[in-house]
Amino acid sequence: MDDSQRNALAEAVLGQIFVELEASGRHVHVTAEQAQHLFGHGLTPKRPLSQPGQYLANERLTVIGPKGEFHNVAVLGPERREAQVEISLTDGKHLGITPPVRLSGNAKGSPGGTLVGPSGRVTLQEGFIAAQRHIHLRPADAQRFGVRDGQTVQLQTFTQRPVIFHDVVVRVHPDFAPRAHLDYDEANACGFRSGDLGRILP
Amino acid sequence: MDDSQRNALAEAVLGQIFVELEASGRHVHVTAEQAQHLFGHGLTPKRPLSQPGQYLANERLTVIGPKGEFHNVAVLGPERREAQVEISLTDGKHLGITPPVRLSGNAKGSPGGTLVGPSGRVTLQEGFIAAQRHIHLRPADAQRFGVRDGQTVQLQTFTQRPVIFHDVVVRVHPDFAPRAHLDYDEANACGFRSGDLGRILP
Repeated sequence: MDDSQRNALAEAVLGQIFVELEASGRHVHVTAEQAQHLFGHGLTPKRPLSQPGQYLANERLTVIGPKGEFHNVAVLGPERREAQVEISLTDGKHLGITPPVRLSGNAKGSPGGTLVGPSGRVTLQEGFIAAQRHIHLRPADAQRFGVRDGQTVQLQTFTQRPVIFHDVVVRVHPDFAPRAHLDYDEANACGFRSGDLGRILP
Repeated sequence: MDDSQRNALAEAVLGQIFVELEASGRHVHVTAEQAQHLFGHGLTPKRPLSQPGQYLANERLTVIGPKGEFHNVAVLGPERREAQVEISLTDGKHLGITPPVRLSGNAKGSPGGTLVGPSGRVTLQEGFIAAQRHIHLRPADAQRFGVRDGQTVQLQTFTQRPVIFHDVVVRVHPDFAPRAHLDYDEANACGFRSGDLGRILP
């Protein structure tokens, strides 16, 4: 049963519309130039992510902060125009920085750190953020849910220890797959397991 | 301004009753016999905790699981009749175990692990849990909030990224200080900072 079939079933049975939850672990976005410097070549896809065109790369990095480091951190492709390191607040504590809670792509003035790959090292002056929880929707989904791009909503999770997250940003784009994205602090706080669903509250 | 003054003020100004939030980091409870074995003596208090009679001990332990370990882990006193290790689900991932979400004191059938102190080592067959979020109240507080011992309620957090936690267990005892206890996954998921308040939803 694919997403749309499951949603249609849930809607018919329960009179409610659901969105699949996903947990995003810590990961790095790099520019084409940085990929060349860190790995000696561009990023290569290992497997596709739920959002069309996005992929988990074969390449991995060490991420270093003032108080700690993480090895073997996922890199997501394709390359971007700006580097960005998305970590949880728990990860920030380990690294010794306090990342601001921001939407992806908005890392101005955030703390920096160092990336180390097999071929080189890059020091970022900024770019470390905790991704603000958000929901990807296509225009048709947004219309069904009665929400619009940029709006914040409440998201109820049907998980082991249920939570209603406030301040969840809706992002609408025709190329999106409908998914609510949590970081690992949030995923663990609600006892998320793969396949769990959430509901946008009216 | 102490707690009761602040609550009275909040109640007068906002017509609402608040409870202070606290985040509990990973910690260990040991028996008197285990303390003797691990440290060569009983636990000694370093500073009192918010719950009367409870204290952070000067003694620290290494906690070892099948896939990882934590050094310098807090030990809480006084000694108990059963050992218990309270960790977050994130911690569980690091250690390589999946702790059940349970109220403190209910660790039957949970995973085990090893504790290492300066004088010895203890292997626990069980006792590793993720503490279920809960609210400590005195009988008078419970009456004001309109809740009773053992009930589960929803807790709204007034924090950087607000959340409503469902399935929060109310525990009532005359010796309690009124506090809502979250683990670090939950604290980070709502952007908790020391002194933040929550509200029990009607």
